[in-house]
Amino acid sequence: MDSSSPSDGPSAVVIGVDYGTLSGRAVVVRVSDGVELASAVHVYPHAVIERALPSSGQLLPPDWALQVPSDYVDVLKVAVPAALAASGVSPEQVIGIGTDFTACTVLPVLADGTPLSELPEFADNPHAYVKLWKHHAAQSHADRINAAAHERAEPWIARYGGKLSAEWALAKGLELFENAPEVYARAEHIVEAADWIVWQLTGDYVRNACTAGYKEVRQGGQYPSSEFLEALNPGFGGFFRDKIEQPVGELGDRAGGLSAEAAGWTGLPEGIAVAVGNVDAHVTAAAAQALDPGQMVAIMGTSTCHVMNSDQLGEVPGMCGVVDGGIVKGLWGYEAGQSAVGDIFGWFIDSGVPQSYRDEAERLGLGMHEYLTSLAAEQAVGQTGLIALDWHNGNRSVLVDHTLSAVLVGQTLATTPEDVYRALLEATAFGTRTIVEAFKNSGVPVTELIVAGGLLKNELLMQIYADVTRLPLSVIGSDQGPALGSAIHAAVAAGSYPDVRTASASMGRSRPAAYLPDEGRAQAYDALFAEYALLHDYFGRGGNDVIHRLREIRRVAVER
Amino acid sequence: MDSSSPSDGPSAVVIGVDYGTLSGRAVVVRVSDGVELASAVHVYPHAVIERALPSSGQLLPPDWALQVPSDYVDVLKVAVPAALAASGVSPEQVIGIGTDFTACTVLPVLADGTPLSELPEFADNPHAYVKLWKHHAAQSHADRINAAAHERAEPWIARYGGKLSAEWALAKGLELFENAPEVYARAEHIVEAADWIVWQLTGDYVRNACTAGYKEVRQGGQYPSSEFLEALNPGFGGFFRDKIEQPVGELGDRAGGLSAEAAGWTGLPEGIAVAVGNVDAHVTAAAAQALDPGQMVAIMGTSTCHVMNSDQLGEVPGMCGVVDGGIVKGLWGYEAGQSAVGDIFGWFIDSGVPQSYRDEAERLGLGMHEYLTSLAAEQAVGQTGLIALDWHNGNRSVLVDHTLSAVLVGQTLATTPEDVYRALLEATAFGTRTIVEAFKNSGVPVTELIVAGGLLKNELLMQIYADVTRLPLSVIGSDQGPALGSAIHAAVAAGSYPDVRTASASMGRSRPAAYLPDEGRAQAYDALFAEYALLHDYFGRGGNDVIHRLREIRRVAVER
Repeated sequence: MDSSSPSDGPSAVVIGVDYGTLSGRAVVVRVSDGVELASAVHVYPHAVIERALPSSGQLLPPDWALQVPSDYVDVLKVAVPAALAASGVSPEQVIGIGTDFTACTVLPVLADGTPLSELPEFADNPHAYVKLWKHHAAQSHADRINAAAHERAEPWIARYGGKLSAEWALAKGLELFENAPEVYARAEHIVEAADWIVWQLTGDYVRNACTAGYKEVRQGGQYPSSEFLEALNPGFGGFFRDKIEQPVGELGDRAGGLSAEAAGWTGLPEGIAVAVGNVDAHVTAAAAQALDPGQMVAIMGTSTCHVMNSDQLGEVPGMCGVVDGGIVKGLWGYEAGQSAVGDIFGWFIDSGVPQSYRDEAERLGLGMHEYLTSLAAEQAVGQTGLIALDWHNGNRSVLVDHTLSAVLVGQTLATTPEDVYRALLEATAFGTRTIVEAFKNSGVPVTELIVAGGLLKNELLMQIYADVTRLPLSVIGSDQGPALGSAIHAAVAAGSYPDVRTASASMGRSRPAAYLPDEGRAQAYDALFAEYALLHDYFGRGGNDVIHRLREIRRVAVER
Repeated sequence: MDSSSPSDGPSAVVIGVDYGTLSGRAVVVRVSDGVELASAVHVYPHAVIERALPSSGQLLPPDWALQVPSDYVDVLKVAVPAALAASGVSPEQVIGIGTDFTACTVLPVLADGTPLSELPEFADNPHAYVKLWKHHAAQSHADRINAAAHERAEPWIARYGGKLSAEWALAKGLELFENAPEVYARAEHIVEAADWIVWQLTGDYVRNACTAGYKEVRQGGQYPSSEFLEALNPGFGGFFRDKIEQPVGELGDRAGGLSAEAAGWTGLPEGIAVAVGNVDAHVTAAAAQALDPGQMVAIMGTSTCHVMNSDQLGEVPGMCGVVDGGIVKGLWGYEAGQSAVGDIFGWFIDSGVPQSYRDEAERLGLGMHEYLTSLAAEQAVGQTGLIALDWHNGNRSVLVDHTLSAVLVGQTLATTPEDVYRALLEATAFGTRTIVEAFKNSGVPVTELIVAGGLLKNELLMQIYADVTRLPLSVIGSDQGPALGSAIHAAVAAGSYPDVRTASASMGRSRPAAYLPDEGRAQAYDALFAEYALLHDYFGRGGNDVIHRLREIRRVAVER
C-alpha cells in the first residue's frame, strides 16, 4: 500500500464530530482526499448553565458554567444521522468516527461512566454536573495550587508556563473535594468530556494524551505526587490515583470499536474504529496541515488558541503547557492563548457605532465588522494615533492573569470608530507577537503562522498579523477545521493512513503563505509594538498595579 | 445714596453684549435687580473660517481659525435693537452698555481702527483677518517664546504658570511678524477684539486690564522687554511698544460715551456709558456673585475656564495666568482651564451608542446625554472599574500641553456605554481637582466652586464635582452669565453702583451651596483620584512619553 493513499478505496468516509461550547457538529469526510460531503449541527438543549440549575431553579454563584452530559449524546443521535443522510453516503461506507471537545471540561461519574448528575440524589447538586471549560469558580484553588507548586519547587510547573489555570482539572478537582465532598467521595472517575464521549461510543474508558497532558498535568507518564496533593489539603492525596488515572491513548490511536448501543444512536456500523478523544484546538492543526515544528496554528474566534509542535523542549513563560505528543505523537506540543479576540471586536460594535455608519453599511450591504474593516483598511500604520492593550477578558499568555483589563491610549476629539476598531485589531496582533516572542526567547522557534477559525475571513486582520509578527501567514482551507481534524484522526484510527501527519497531508487543506509581511509596514509596526510592550509590562507586571486596584475598588463598590 | 441701590431709579436698564465664538447675544437687564428683560442673538455670517478664505477660496493650513470683524458690528446693529424691542423698554431708559469677548482674539488695524482685512490690498491675506482664540498655528512660536523666557529667566513667566499659550497675543504677534511681515508692518495696532468692539462703540481705543494682563503679558504696568523680543527675532523688539501699548482701563470703568455712529447702529442714546471691554469667562464671576477670594468660578461648556480672585499672590504651576485686577480691581485674578469637557462627552456620544439605547432614550423622551446620565447615576463610585485621563483635546492646566491625548484604563467585555460615560464625567472632575490642588499647594486657597455654563444642568456631574473636590458647589442663577456680567459692568460704568462687587450683589444671581460633598463618596473618590494622579504624572510628565511618540508616529504616517 502506498503510504499516502487510503487503504479503503475511494468510497470510504469517516465522521468527525466537533463538540463546541453551544453545539455539536458532525461532518462526513471522504477518506481519500478529505472532501467534506455534508454536515449537521445539533444545538445543546441546555446550552451553558450559568444562572440557575434547571432541575431546581437553584441560583448559581458568579463564574459558574455547567453543562448536561446527555446533550452530548444527543449530538450522536441527531447530528450524525442527519449529516450522513445529507451526504447521500450509505452507512456501510463509514469506516471510523473521531471526536474533539472543549477542554478542560470535566464531569464526575460512576465506574460505568454514569454521570453523577443523572443520579436522583445528585440532580440538585450543581457540583455533580459537567464543569465547562469556562467555569471560573476555582480561581482561589488555582492560586493555592500555584503557590504550593512554586514553594515546593515542583518540577512540572515550568511545563505550564509557571501557572496552572483555574479552568483545569486539578483546580476543579480541589474545588469539588472542598466544596462538595459528598460528590467527590461518590465520583469513581473524574473524566474529561473528550474521553467520556469516546467511552459512550465504545463502552471503554481510555484517556487521551492531549488533555491528560495539558489539563491533568501528566508529564513523563506521571501525575503530581500524593505529597503535593496532601499539602494542598489533607485527604486530597488520592486525586490522581483514584479519580484520574486510566490507560492513555495516543492521538490517532483506535480507542475501540463502535458499541452496539452507539451504533443504534448513530446509524453507523457496529465495530467501526473510534479514535481516541481530542481537543478542538489541537485537532485543528491536522486539518490545517500545520504539524511541522515551528508552524504555529492560531484558531481565531471569540478568543484565540495557539498550538504548535516543536522538536525543542523549552520552558516558555506563561504558556498554557507543553506536552509530549500533545498534538501529534513524537513531537512536543505547545499551547498558548489570548482570552479575547473576536469578542473584543464584537464588544466594541455592541457598544455602539454612529447612526451614519449603520446607514452607510446598510446602503453598501455590509455587516458592521466588514464596514469598519473597510474604513480601517484605508489607514496607514500608525495613523490612528492609538495603542491598545487587548486585555478585555484578561491575559491568558504570557502574563496568565484573568483579572487584567484593557487600556486604550491616544484618543482625541478627532478619534473615529474605525480608528479604535483598527487599534483593537492591532492590539490582538501585538498580543500574538508577544506570545511568539516568548517562544522564540525560550529557544522554541516559530517560523509560520497558520490561521483557522472564523476571523480568517477578515483579510485586513490577516495582513496586520503577518505585518506585526513578520511571519508568513497561511490559512486553513476548511470552515470546519476541528471536525475535519477529528475526521483525519478517525481515518488514522481506522488504519487508512499510517499516522496523522500522512493523513493530514492528504485530507487537510490550507492556503500556504496567503499573506506575507510587508517590510515597510512591519518596520512601522515595530515602533508601535515597542510601545505596546512598554505598556504591557507597566500595567501587567506591576509597574503600576492600577488595574488590579480598580478591580478591587469595583468589587467593594458593587458589594456596598 | 444707599450703596446697594442703583442711582437711576427703578426703570433704568443696561445692555450686556456677549461675543461668543459663533454668535453675539445682547441682553437687556434692569439695573435695580439684574432681572433679564429680553435678549436677542445674532449669528456671525462668516462663523469661524477654518478651511478657506471666503474672499478668494484660498485654503488655510490646519489649526487656523479666523473671523471677520464686521460680523461683530452686525451684532450691535441687529441683536441690540432686537433685544431692546423685545424688552418693551424705551431707549431712553438705557443708561449704559457693556461687552465681553472671547480671548485672545486679535486683529491688526490702522490707527483709526480699520481692520487690515477690510483694505483691498489685504483682503486675500489670511494674516490680515481676526485670529480667533482657537487659532493654533503659532505653537512653534509659543515654544520658542517659552524656551527663551526660561533661558533668560524672565520674571513674568512664573505669572503664567511657566508657559505662555500659543493662543495669546505674543505668539500670534510673532507669527504675524515672521510669516506676514507686510501685514505686521502695516498694522498700527494689534488689538484685542474685546477692545476693538468698545472702540467701535465709543470712537476711542482703551485697552482693558483683563486681556492686557492675561493675554498680552502686562504685569505691574510693564510688558516684556524689547531685549527679550529682539532675542526672539531681531526687529521684533517694538512689538509691545508699537503695536500693543495703549492706555489701560480697569474693569467696570467707563471707556467713553456711545458715539453718534454707534447710537445709530444700536438705537441707543448717544453719550451713554460704554464699559471697558471684558472677557466672557472673567465677566461671569460678577454674574455668579463669585468675586470673593477663594471662590473659584468654573465656566463649564465645551471646555472649562476657571477664574478666581485671591488676596494671595502665588505662582501656580501651569495656571493660565495671574493678573492684578484681572477680574475685579484690587484683587489678584487667576485663570486656569480644561481644554475639553463637554466636548469629550459629546465626542463619546457622537462615536456611537447601541441602538437599544437610542430606542429607550426616545421612548423616555430623553436626549442621549440625559439618558446616559440617568444610567450612570445609578452606579456607585468605583463601580465602573474604569479610570480615564481627560486629555482628548490636550491639557491646558496644569501640564499646559496641547499635544497630549486621552487614556482609558479598565475596559472589560462587560464594560457598558454608561460606564465609560461616567468615567469621562469623573475624569473631568479629577482634572478640576488637579487644578484646585495646584492652587492650594501654591498657597492660593480655594474654598468654593461656583459653576456657570451649560453643563450645570447635569445634576450628576455637579454632584460628582462636589464629591471629587470636597468643595461646596454653587451654581449661577442665569443662563446668560457673560451677558449679565457685561450688564453689571455697564451699570458700574454708568455710575449706578460704586463698584463691581456692589453691583454683583444686587444684579448677580446664584444658588449657593446647591451641592455639598458626601463624605462617603468623597472618600471613595480619593482612592480613584490617587490613581488618576499616578496616571496623570506617568503619561503627562515623561514617565512614559508614549503619547507624544504616538503623535509623532501619526504625523509621519499621515504624511507618508
